[in-house]
Amino acid sequence: MKYDTRLCWLPFLGDTVKAGFTTCREMAEAELAIGLRNLGYEPPVCVLETPGEDEGYEIQETPGGLTIRGGTRGVLYGAYSLMMRLAAGQSPLTAWTAPCRSLRMLNHWDNMSGAVERGYAGRSLFFDNGKFAYDSRRLLRYGRILASVGINTVCINNVNVETPADQLITDELLPEVRKVADLLRPFGIRLLIAIDFALPMTCGLTTADPLDGSVRGWWEKQVARVYAAIPDLCGFLVKADSEFRPGPGLYCRNHAEGARPIARALAAFGGTLVWRCFVYNCQQDWRDRQTDRPKAAYETYAPLEGLFDENVILQVKYGPYDFQVREPISPLLYAMPATKKALEVQLTQEYTGHQIDLYYMLPQWQEILSDLKGAEPRYISAVSNLGNDANWTGHDLAQANLFAYGLFAWYAVVDTAAVTRWWIALTFGEDPRVEDVLLDMLLASRELYESYTAPLGLGWMVNPNGHYGPSPEGYEYSAWGTYLRADRQGIGVDRSPSGTGFVLQYPPDKAALYGDVKTCPEELILFFHRLSYTHTLPSGKTLAQHVYDTHFEGARRAEAMAERWNALEGRVPAEAFDNVRARFILQARNAREWRDVVNAYFYRYSGVADEKGRVLY
Amino acid sequence: MKYDTRLCWLPFLGDTVKAGFTTCREMAEAELAIGLRNLGYEPPVCVLETPGEDEGYEIQETPGGLTIRGGTRGVLYGAYSLMMRLAAGQSPLTAWTAPCRSLRMLNHWDNMSGAVERGYAGRSLFFDNGKFAYDSRRLLRYGRILASVGINTVCINNVNVETPADQLITDELLPEVRKVADLLRPFGIRLLIAIDFALPMTCGLTTADPLDGSVRGWWEKQVARVYAAIPDLCGFLVKADSEFRPGPGLYCRNHAEGARPIARALAAFGGTLVWRCFVYNCQQDWRDRQTDRPKAAYETYAPLEGLFDENVILQVKYGPYDFQVREPISPLLYAMPATKKALEVQLTQEYTGHQIDLYYMLPQWQEILSDLKGAEPRYISAVSNLGNDANWTGHDLAQANLFAYGLFAWYAVVDTAAVTRWWIALTFGEDPRVEDVLLDMLLASRELYESYTAPLGLGWMVNPNGHYGPSPEGYEYSAWGTYLRADRQGIGVDRSPSGTGFVLQYPPDKAALYGDVKTCPEELILFFHRLSYTHTLPSGKTLAQHVYDTHFEGARRAEAMAERWNALEGRVPAEAFDNVRARFILQARNAREWRDVVNAYFYRYSGVADEKGRVLY
Repeated sequence: MKYDTRLCWLPFLGDTVKAGFTTCREMAEAELAIGLRNLGYEPPVCVLETPGEDEGYEIQETPGGLTIRGGTRGVLYGAYSLMMRLAAGQSPLTAWTAPCRSLRMLNHWDNMSGAVERGYAGRSLFFDNGKFAYDSRRLLRYGRILASVGINTVCINNVNVETPADQLITDELLPEVRKVADLLRPFGIRLLIAIDFALPMTCGLTTADPLDGSVRGWWEKQVARVYAAIPDLCGFLVKADSEFRPGPGLYCRNHAEGARPIARALAAFGGTLVWRCFVYNCQQDWRDRQTDRPKAAYETYAPLEGLFDENVILQVKYGPYDFQVREPISPLLYAMPATKKALEVQLTQEYTGHQIDLYYMLPQWQEILSDLKGAEPRYISAVSNLGNDANWTGHDLAQANLFAYGLFAWYAVVDTAAVTRWWIALTFGEDPRVEDVLLDMLLASRELYESYTAPLGLGWMVNPNGHYGPSPEGYEYSAWGTYLRADRQGIGVDRSPSGTGFVLQYPPDKAALYGDVKTCPEELILFFHRLSYTHTLPSGKTLAQHVYDTHFEGARRAEAMAERWNALEGRVPAEAFDNVRARFILQARNAREWRDVVNAYFYRYSGVADEKGRVLY
Repeated sequence: MKYDTRLCWLPFLGDTVKAGFTTCREMAEAELAIGLRNLGYEPPVCVLETPGEDEGYEIQETPGGLTIRGGTRGVLYGAYSLMMRLAAGQSPLTAWTAPCRSLRMLNHWDNMSGAVERGYAGRSLFFDNGKFAYDSRRLLRYGRILASVGINTVCINNVNVETPADQLITDELLPEVRKVADLLRPFGIRLLIAIDFALPMTCGLTTADPLDGSVRGWWEKQVARVYAAIPDLCGFLVKADSEFRPGPGLYCRNHAEGARPIARALAAFGGTLVWRCFVYNCQQDWRDRQTDRPKAAYETYAPLEGLFDENVILQVKYGPYDFQVREPISPLLYAMPATKKALEVQLTQEYTGHQIDLYYMLPQWQEILSDLKGAEPRYISAVSNLGNDANWTGHDLAQANLFAYGLFAWYAVVDTAAVTRWWIALTFGEDPRVEDVLLDMLLASRELYESYTAPLGLGWMVNPNGHYGPSPEGYEYSAWGTYLRADRQGIGVDRSPSGTGFVLQYPPDKAALYGDVKTCPEELILFFHRLSYTHTLPSGKTLAQHVYDTHFEGARRAEAMAERWNALEGRVPAEAFDNVRARFILQARNAREWRDVVNAYFYRYSGVADEKGRVLY
């Protein structure tokens, strides 16, 4: 196994990708030629395009071999699926499958400087030093990896479009974007471009007011220019009125009004406008107990139901805060049934361990979906966890999140264990011992990380800015709207109808469930309620004791995980073994730190001793 | 008044400094020619050098005029003194005066990148973008300003010598250092160079062990090379075994051993080694209650009494922590009577308001000196507050700190009000209203800043990293050794003999005074003792009530100060008025923030309500 493809789940395809194709079908045939040979599969495999279809495919037995029948892109998805099934010792036969979601996006938060905002896997795959700078062979492998799990749209630049250099649609950069689009097209991947709402003003207009005629005209002109260069561009992605990014609020326009001129300009070319809904007051006065940040997105968007154009997709983070370890589903996802929505998840482990601590996300996504029953967004987006590290994701095991994301995005409901086992088998081969250990670790990882960091739905106890490691009051007096309000009496924010009323944004059954401390799920109880340290939880423990127990147990389990990994030495490639071992050691140390800090925090405020007499600082 | 010299206390000298001199006498005559003319003083002023003298001078009446009689540098100090006295309407006559301290240093924390570590007045006066880069006319004015208050030694590079580019004694950079030395020589200013203890290893040796013969030889060679270029160099400045800087500890050598090879190499050329004593464990485990950071410097150095070479000066911060608003005197300053020591103060307002909040330091220095009676260090050093801002110090009024520092360094004991009035008169002219207001503000400023930030000797409630604004638990679980240990019962660290024993490092009378909660000065009581929130202070108030009262009062006074300044509009130059007004508004806001956060912090832990019923959050 070469270093460059280390642990990517497609080792049978090797390092080389053939370039120079324009269609997925050509790519499918080229990839099959490499992969089937390396897999030692000799019967003929025929690739047939089904007219009028795009992404669906089926794999059937045909005399003496197999036939992949699929749409324009479906044939490529079918080809990868076939090889990945063979590689894992599964039957390749597949009944017709088409994706549940037509847009399956990956958002890179890459700056032209080469830095990746919240990136934990090295620097950008696309940019360096203010310029496009990439290894095109690596970019072809990137396309292959994404296509193998059906990701069909990528935004290569950061949603925070801050510097002029990050404005990809300038005359200077657009030809460079086009080259990337050309490289990725045979993988069925289309580009989104993140743009700055105020771009008209950078380019000489005196306003970016969406109701201003000159602004409308300006966007029409720009979009025409962009589509002349990249006719199959997916569209634009906008973060507006969010964390210091400009937006329609500057002109007292609502977000539907703000989106309209850009959306209309895009509509003329079949383009889509993805509009992020991560809007809240990031300059809140911490003294203000009326404002409650989780309420912000719903308050901003729900009244705009029916007002967005057809080609606008609202991209909504899964929780009402910001990618915390444990949050309830964003109430906005239950609202606005007539508006197109994309669920936004975050593969890059900003609040979930920085690709040092293990945090496998598929169980969480399944949970979200099961909560949303009947209100599932039809589109999906994930913040990328990729960088130019040799292993793509910093932590070798973090590759599993990208793999699982692709399958989850396609199928919506998957068998978590089966998907995870598939990734393990493709990546590490079919050693049952390795499979058992890894399956356990991955499936337990989220709950483990939660156990030592975020008790009972409490978030934000992280070090400010970096977001790794504990600092329980690090955000307590900040302007970010993220407060725990701990004092001698208790901790948490009352979001019930008698508190901030946040629960009232949910459908009535959910509102009743969450709003009552007696029915609220334990893992969310401090998200929705303010409780005393001696409150008795459903488990029968007091709140303080629950915190102590989970944190001691979490640190113990993190240590045990590190030890368990050691037993796999020799069973997994040495580089992967070392990569993961080094991280597990750091994770165990991190878990001890979280244990002692969070326990001290609860102990110092509550004065409640540990029933089991363990040390609290 | 031109912008470039705005508010420097020497406006009568204008923007131009004559260049091309080599001696202070030449400079003195040139400066007198400019200054006396601008001051309209016509009688002849004669400059006479007193053989064998260096810094002392006197100003006497001679037939028809004045005579400055002084040492090599004394004549220049006399010239400035004469003009500054005239400019302030004072008699210029001065009996023989010689400085109490022979080294009166300014340490710049400037990096070759141009960034100034903890700088709040723009970027470096010396460096930019990895290179020497300065306006030599501005550097001449810098020399003038320093010489006018008798500062005779400057270290232009950061004590944290981190990158190869910051190593000023390389073949490439040494000629550039020499140019700066040449520019500053006629102002009586000699250079110190901050060097990296491990520099031998950067330059090819395999060790920096001070007991290794090759290391000794290497330093001898380097020092010879440096003195060939700059024969009157003051010497080197070293920060070793401190905050990740390498030092003798790496080789299990003590600091006397560490200093020796460098000191001996310097001694051959009459050079001095200034050795910083800011040594502590910056990777402390916060759980560890045995280790007490304030004890570190004394523990490291006191046992080494008598072991340092004659030409070594230990540079000791005034307090045992790190430039906090309120600390007791460092016990190391009472110890080691046979060892040369320099008192280190910090003009740049790292913990004292970032040159946004007003913080005039002379009262604090006088307090230190009066505490040290009989143990005053013979040398003094200050971290610079200068940068390339047009007004040199960011906050116009922060210039007063540099002025006062020079005079304090020379005279040791000064009349605080007289020195301050002198600065006001030179800077703003002789409007009695301006003088009254500014004198009040400056003299009250430290106590005001203390009142809303650092109650009862408690420090470190600042935002981590930046050190501006409140974050009471920002350092609570960090590795920096700075803990408040607040819980429901009380707050503070017991440093009495029954606690960490830190007080035992003091002479017996001080140890007894500080060690007993009944005699400990109120303003230091939480530095030395752990107290409950309901502890009755000497003032008769409970601890919690004291905190509330001082913080409400501090915020009120900060606001009142801003209003009082407004009444000076038209009486001070418009640029200065605006500069200070803008900062006072920010200070008032900062004080409100501190008030509410610190009060909330004490209230949430203590549960003690405010007697006066004011809002606690």
